[in-house]
Amino acid sequence: MLVVMKRGATQQEIDAVVARIREFGITPVPLPGAERTAIGTFGSTSREAADAVESLPGVAEVVPVSRPFKLASREVIPTDTVVRIGDVPIGASAPLAVAAGPCSVETREQTVATARAVRDAGAAALRGGAFKPRTSPYQFRGLGESGLDILAEARAETGLPIITEVLTPGDVDAVARVADCLQIGARNMQNFALLDAVGEQSKPVLLKRGMSATVEELLLSAEYVLAKGNRNVILCERGIRTFEKYTRNTFDVNAIPLLKRLTHLPVLADPSHGTGKWYLVAPVALAAVAAGADGLLIEVHPSPDHALSDGYQSLTFANFAALMATVPEVARAVGRTAATSAVRA
Amino acid sequence: MLVVMKRGATQQEIDAVVARIREFGITPVPLPGAERTAIGTFGSTSREAADAVESLPGVAEVVPVSRPFKLASREVIPTDTVVRIGDVPIGASAPLAVAAGPCSVETREQTVATARAVRDAGAAALRGGAFKPRTSPYQFRGLGESGLDILAEARAETGLPIITEVLTPGDVDAVARVADCLQIGARNMQNFALLDAVGEQSKPVLLKRGMSATVEELLLSAEYVLAKGNRNVILCERGIRTFEKYTRNTFDVNAIPLLKRLTHLPVLADPSHGTGKWYLVAPVALAAVAAGADGLLIEVHPSPDHALSDGYQSLTFANFAALMATVPEVARAVGRTAATSAVRA
Amino acid sequence: MLVVMKRGATQQEIDAVVARIREFGITPVPLPGAERTAIGTFGSTSREAADAVESLPGVAEVVPVSRPFKLASREVIPTDTVVRIGDVPIGASAPLAVAAGPCSVETREQTVATARAVRDAGAAALRGGAFKPRTSPYQFRGLGESGLDILAEARAETGLPIITEVLTPGDVDAVARVADCLQIGARNMQNFALLDAVGEQSKPVLLKRGMSATVEELLLSAEYVLAKGNRNVILCERGIRTFEKYTRNTFDVNAIPLLKRLTHLPVLADPSHGTGKWYLVAPVALAAVAAGADGLLIEVHPSPDHALSDGYQSLTFANFAALMATVPEVARAVGRTAATSAVRA
Amino acid sequence: MLVVMKRGATQQEIDAVVARIREFGITPVPLPGAERTAIGTFGSTSREAADAVESLPGVAEVVPVSRPFKLASREVIPTDTVVRIGDVPIGASAPLAVAAGPCSVETREQTVATARAVRDAGAAALRGGAFKPRTSPYQFRGLGESGLDILAEARAETGLPIITEVLTPGDVDAVARVADCLQIGARNMQNFALLDAVGEQSKPVLLKRGMSATVEELLLSAEYVLAKGNRNVILCERGIRTFEKYTRNTFDVNAIPLLKRLTHLPVLADPSHGTGKWYLVAPVALAAVAAGADGLLIEVHPSPDHALSDGYQSLTFANFAALMATVPEVARAVGRTAATSAVRA
Repeated sequence: MLVVMKRGATQQEIDAVVARIREFGITPVPLPGAERTAIGTFGSTSREAADAVESLPGVAEVVPVSRPFKLASREVIPTDTVVRIGDVPIGASAPLAVAAGPCSVETREQTVATARAVRDAGAAALRGGAFKPRTSPYQFRGLGESGLDILAEARAETGLPIITEVLTPGDVDAVARVADCLQIGARNMQNFALLDAVGEQSKPVLLKRGMSATVEELLLSAEYVLAKGNRNVILCERGIRTFEKYTRNTFDVNAIPLLKRLTHLPVLADPSHGTGKWYLVAPVALAAVAAGADGLLIEVHPSPDHALSDGYQSLTFANFAALMATVPEVARAVGRTAATSAVRA
Repeated sequence: MLVVMKRGATQQEIDAVVARIREFGITPVPLPGAERTAIGTFGSTSREAADAVESLPGVAEVVPVSRPFKLASREVIPTDTVVRIGDVPIGASAPLAVAAGPCSVETREQTVATARAVRDAGAAALRGGAFKPRTSPYQFRGLGESGLDILAEARAETGLPIITEVLTPGDVDAVARVADCLQIGARNMQNFALLDAVGEQSKPVLLKRGMSATVEELLLSAEYVLAKGNRNVILCERGIRTFEKYTRNTFDVNAIPLLKRLTHLPVLADPSHGTGKWYLVAPVALAAVAAGADGLLIEVHPSPDHALSDGYQSLTFANFAALMATVPEVARAVGRTAATSAVRA
Repeated sequence: MLVVMKRGATQQEIDAVVARIREFGITPVPLPGAERTAIGTFGSTSREAADAVESLPGVAEVVPVSRPFKLASREVIPTDTVVRIGDVPIGASAPLAVAAGPCSVETREQTVATARAVRDAGAAALRGGAFKPRTSPYQFRGLGESGLDILAEARAETGLPIITEVLTPGDVDAVARVADCLQIGARNMQNFALLDAVGEQSKPVLLKRGMSATVEELLLSAEYVLAKGNRNVILCERGIRTFEKYTRNTFDVNAIPLLKRLTHLPVLADPSHGTGKWYLVAPVALAAVAAGADGLLIEVHPSPDHALSDGYQSLTFANFAALMATVPEVARAVGRTAATSAVRA
Repeated sequence: MLVVMKRGATQQEIDAVVARIREFGITPVPLPGAERTAIGTFGSTSREAADAVESLPGVAEVVPVSRPFKLASREVIPTDTVVRIGDVPIGASAPLAVAAGPCSVETREQTVATARAVRDAGAAALRGGAFKPRTSPYQFRGLGESGLDILAEARAETGLPIITEVLTPGDVDAVARVADCLQIGARNMQNFALLDAVGEQSKPVLLKRGMSATVEELLLSAEYVLAKGNRNVILCERGIRTFEKYTRNTFDVNAIPLLKRLTHLPVLADPSHGTGKWYLVAPVALAAVAAGADGLLIEVHPSPDHALSDGYQSLTFANFAALMATVPEVARAVGRTAATSAVRA
C-alpha cells in the first residue's frame, strides 16, 4: 500500500504511521516529496493494516497496491483453467459453450421439451431453476426438490448436463446430488456461508456477478470458493445496476475482456438478465462472444408469455435456434470454435 | 397495471392482450387514445400477468400500478409500528434511540469497555458483530459463538440490549438465544432463505438496505419477514453504491422521509457505513435525525486505528460522546425527544 | 399519461384532477378500479400537464405514456436514415464505417501520419480534436483554430473526411467551415444552446451520449438538433458512469440494439472512451459491431505513451490495423458489410 | 503519483518508465518491493505524465497522489471564504442563508408575489430562472431577457438580491448586468467555455454539481472559475443520479461535510432538485442544515400545480414558511445562526 500524508503533516505524525505499520509486521518505506510525504509498504500488506493506518492523524489517503485476490489471479496462475460440467469443457482452450433453458422449471413437459429444443439447436448444457430467489414473497419461488427430479429426467432424455441454482447452505447437498454444476445467483454473490458450502464440495460452481458488485468483488467471492479447495469455478457477467431505465440491467461487456486479463477462470455471459428484454438478447449475446466470452447462458421457454418468471426476457425455440445459427459465425470471426450438438454427438 | 400498445398495433393484437389478461382472472379495460391504445387492469394484478403480457405482439410497455408490498405499506397499516429491542421502544412515537458499539466483537475487554462508554454517553442499545461478512476470505470473520457470549456479558454489565448480525439460516437459533435483535446485513437483504428463517422466530429484526437496493426492494424484503408472522421489523438506511469515490457509500438521506411516508415500520440510520469515513459520521448522523430517523446505529471503538475491521469509520469514545451531546438538540429542533441513559435509568 | 390516485382519494380530489387536466386542453378518462382510481389522458399530453397534476391532493403517481421524442422516433420515421460525412454514408443500409484518429491534434506530423495510417488500415474518416474539453483547467485544451488547419491538411493528403468537436455556440461557424461533421461531446449533450446552434447549420452532427444520460435523454438531445431543421444526426454510445472502478466508463452495449429499435438515426460506438483502457478497446469494438453498430470511433496515436491526452486508451498503428483486420469478419458474421479503403477507392 | 509495475516486470521496463517520467521534468523514485516494484514521483506531477506512463510495458497501474485542484483546496487556502450576493454574506462565518423562488419566472405577478412571500418568511435572496435548460425541445424554456427585467422589478420591490442561471457564454454580459449572482446549472458544470466566461467577470458564481459529477470534478470546475480570477464561487449540492427510482435524484448529504473539509468555498444545498418531490423537501433541507450547509436553495411557487416547470418539487408559500420556522432551530442545534428577515431588516 501507499500511505499519503497531508501537506503539513508533522514529523511525529509520520513517525506514528511508520510505527503503526511495523506493528503489523510490515516494512514501511518513507518517501519525502516536494508537497508532502508518502510511505510505501510493499509485501503482504493486510487490509487490516490499511484500515488501521487510514484514521491516524496526518494521513490524507491510503492506496492499496497488491491485488487482494490470489488463487483467482492470473498473476498467480497464468494458465487458463478449463472446468468440466458433466463432460462439457468450459474455458479459453475449449470450444465456446452455450447453456440454455427455462428461468424456472415449471412442469416435466415444459422442461423436457425445452431441453430437446436447445440440444437440437446446439446447446451444450441445460440450465433451469428449481429453487428461485424472488424479490417479492408473493411470487412463484420454484418447485424445489421435485424440480430437481424433473431436471434429472431431462438430462436422462437428452444427455445434457445440468446447471441449477442453490440458495442456502442447507440445500447444497441435495442440489449437488443431482446437478452437474451449482449456480450461485447474483443476489448471493456475497452470501459467504453459501460460498464456503459450495467450496467444500466438488461439483463445479457457476458464480454470477452481483448486480452492483465490482469486478474485484466478483473475484474475491470466487476466492472464497477456491480457498476452500474447489478449483472448478466459472464466472458469469449478467448485467449491473445503473441509472438507465429502458433496460432491466446494463450488460457490462467491458467485464468480459477485463476478467480474461485478470483471471484464469472461465467467463460466461448471461444476456437474458443482462438486458431483461428478449429483443435485446441475441445482439448482446453475439457481442459477448465477440468480446471473448467462453460461453453463454440463455433463457429459453416454449411459450415465453406464459412463463411463471422472467418470460419477457426468454427466447422462443425459434429465436434461440436463429441465434445459435449466428453464434459460431461470430466465434470463428474472433478466432475460436463453438461447440455444437453435432460436434458433441 | 397499464398496458401501453404501440402506435399502429392492430385490433387483433389488442384483442390478444385483453384475452391473455383474462386468463389470469383479471378484468381488462381497453382505453383507445389519439395516438395509441392502452389497456388498464385494476384489482389484484400479479407480477406474472404483467410479465406475460409484456412480450405479446403490439405491446410497447407495461406499467405496474398497485404497490407490490402490503404488510409493510402505510396504506394497509396506517399506524406507526413501535418495535421493542429488550425494553427499548423504537418507532415514530418513541424517543429517538441510538445503538452503538464495535463493528466486530474482538475481546471481552474491548466490548465491555465500549458498552459502558456508549451507555454513559446515552446509547440505548449495544450493537456488535460476532459473525462478520467480509469481502475477502482472508479478512477477520468474527469470533462466532464466543463473540455472542461476550455480548451477553456486556449486556449483564450494562443493561443494554444487544443487536447482532446473523449470516445464515443455520445460525438463527443460536443467535436468537442470545440477541435481543437480529440484524440482517446489507449483503443479505435479498437472502430470502435467511429472511424466511428470521420471520419464523420472534426476536425483532433489523433489516439493512442492500448497497444497491431500491427503497421498494427494501420494503419487499421486509415483506418476507412480515409475511412469515414476525411483525417486529426495523428498517435501516446505510448508504448506497454510486459513482462517487471519496466516500465508501452515499448515505441516501432522501430514503428516511420517503420510508416514513411509505411504511409504518421504524427507520434507523447508519452513518458509519453510510459514509465510511469517521470524520463524516457526526454531521451525517445529525442530518439523519433532522430528516426524521427514529434512531441511529453508530460504530464506536476504544481505539479505532487498532480495530480488526472498519476502524476508519469508527468513532472514539470522546467523539461519540460529543455527537450524543448534539443529537438531542437536533431531535428537539425537529419536534421529537431523544432517549438518554438518564431518561432510561 | 396515467394519473394514479391514492387508495381512499375522495371524489372531490378525483374531480379536481379531471378539471385540472382539462385546463391543458386534454381529455381525461377516469378509470375506477378495485383498489383505487386512475385517470388516463391520451393524445398530446404535455410534460407541463403531468407536472401540474402530480402535486394535486389525492394523486399517488403520474405515469407518462407517449414517447417524448418525435422526429428521432422510429415510430414516426420508420425508414433508417443514412447520414453522409463528406462522401461516406453512415447508417443501417450503408457499409459499416470506422472513424479513427488522435484524441487531440498535437502537430501536423502526428496528425498526417495518423491519418495515413488509419486510411491504409481501412478507416473511412478521420477524427481528431482541435478544441478539447478537459476536467481540469491545468490540462492541455487543444490547439484551437490552428488545429482545424492541420485537420484540413490531413484531409487534403488522405481524402478522409473530418469529424471534430465544437464546444461552444460561438465556435460553430469556424468549425463548420472546415469540418465535414461536427461532434458534440458527452459533457455537452445537454448544452442546449450548442444543440440549437448546430441544428441551425447544415453539416452533419455526431452526438455523443452524456456519461450519465439515459437513452431517452440522448434521443431528446437529438430532437433539439432535428427540430431546428438539421436532420443529419448520428448518435454515439461512449460508455456510462457506474460504480465499477477498473474501467474508466462502462460501455453500454445494450444501448446499441436498443437505439436501433427506438430510432432511425445511425448509431456509432466509441470503445476508446467506453473502456478507457487500450487493451479493452479491440474486444469491445468487435462486441459493438456484433451488437449492430453502424460504425466505430477509435482513438489512434503514433505513440500513445507520448500523447497529450487520453494516451492510455489510444491504439498504436499496429494495434489498430490488427483490429481492422477482424472488424469485417465480425461484420460479415452478423450480416453486414464493412467499408474498407479498397472498397471506397 | 505512484507507478505500480506488474509482478515480473523486467529491469528494462522499469528503466523505461523511469526515463519516460524524467522527460516530463519530474524526479522518479524506484521502490523495489517483495512482490513487485513501484515508482514514486512526488512534486508537481502532471496528468499528462500519468497518462503517458500508464500504457508503457510492464506497468500495472498509475495512482495519482497530489490533489488536482489548487485554488479551491483548503490545503492551499485554509481560511473559509465568504461570498457576498448583493449585501448578503454566504459562508462558514456568516449566518445560514436561504435563497428561494420559482424554478421559472413566468409572470411579473407570480414573481413579485413569490419574492414578497419568501422575504417575509425569512429568505435572504431570490432565485428564479429566466433562461431554462430543458431536457426536451418541446418544453417551456423560460422568458429570457424579459424574465431578467421581472427579476429586477422583484428586487426593487423587496430588496432581495437575485440569483439566476446563465446558459451560454453569449448571455453572460446580459445576465451579469441584472443578476447579483450567476448560477451555472448542473448540466453545464463541465461547460468549460461557460466557466471561463463567468470567471472573467466579477459577479459571484453559484456552481451546481453535475448530476453525475464526483466531488472532485465539482472542485475542478470551480477551479476553472477561480483560475480566471473570479474568487467568488459558491458550490451547491443538488442530488446525484443513482439507480433509485422513487426520487428524481439522490441528495448526497455526505458531500456537504466532505466539501467543507476539502475546500474553503461556501456550500449550499438544493433539496428541491435533490429529491424531486415537494413532500421530501423540508426534511432534506433540515438534514442539509444539520450536516453543515452554509445555506439552502428552495423552489417556491404561489401555485405549484400550475407551475410551468418543476411544480411537483416546489413548496407553497405556507409550506415554505413552515420550513423556515424550523430552519433556525436546527441551525442553532448545530451551533450556527440563521439569517432571518428580521435580522437583515
